[in-house]
Amino acid sequence: MIPKAKWLNKIRWDEQGLVPVIAQEVGSNDVLMFAWMNRDALARTVEIGQAVYWSRSRKKLWHKGEESGHFQQVHEIRLDCDEDVILLKVEQIDGLACHTGRHSCFYQKLEAQDNEPDWAAVDPVLKNPDDIYK
Amino acid sequence: MIPKAKWLNKIRWDEQGLVPVIAQEVGSNDVLMFAWMNRDALARTVEIGQAVYWSRSRKKLWHKGEESGHFQQVHEIRLDCDEDVILLKVEQIDGLACHTGRHSCFYQKLEAQDNEPDWAAVDPVLKNPDDIYK
Repeated sequence: MIPKAKWLNKIRWDEQGLVPVIAQEVGSNDVLMFAWMNRDALARTVEIGQAVYWSRSRKKLWHKGEESGHFQQVHEIRLDCDEDVILLKVEQIDGLACHTGRHSCFYQKLEAQDNEPDWAAVDPVLKNPDDIYK
Repeated sequence: MIPKAKWLNKIRWDEQGLVPVIAQEVGSNDVLMFAWMNRDALARTVEIGQAVYWSRSRKKLWHKGEESGHFQQVHEIRLDCDEDVILLKVEQIDGLACHTGRHSCFYQKLEAQDNEPDWAAVDPVLKNPDDIYK
């Protein structure tokens, strides 16, 4: 894999050299999570066929599932019209994308509460995080 | 709508006061587009029930559809585990989210081309952009 390849150059990397990435589950089409990639992460993702992100907090490549075993098998990679956002279509191993043990990271829903809306966790925890990260 | 409301404070706005937003179509679950919101945009979205984004290029609120008529009726608003990404579930008026006249902005797919992968536009233009923006 050549990190300076033409297909990587087509992407409009931001000033930090990153691009936002949406991971969507093949079949259900559920949006599982959102993360970031740099050139190396995307090149590595294509190379191994599993999602590799750039962890902005840890400042290093993050092979999703490396600790949890919840890898993402990449079926398709899409780019948007502005060429600055990636959509990954993935098979989510064990169906668990979220570190909270939920299927998707987007489990909080804005609901009407009395006069003011508020966020409510509406999706179930499918696996105890203590059993995921041992 | 109170822009300083508790539910807005729960969101971890970035250093520019923005949050990434994924728009997903109700029913098909297709990912339509990706954009950004600030507090005012999200408060306004909830108020009118249609997606209002923050245009980073024009530096102003952008009521999606204001020029094209392709409004997004908001059915559900979700927040991720890190509280820094929004997922909007929307009904896309006319089924056209992309300014190119396509259903979704993610119409470019990474495909194997000879030795090197490259991006190919794989989804059809459903309406001529000249007929959208008159």
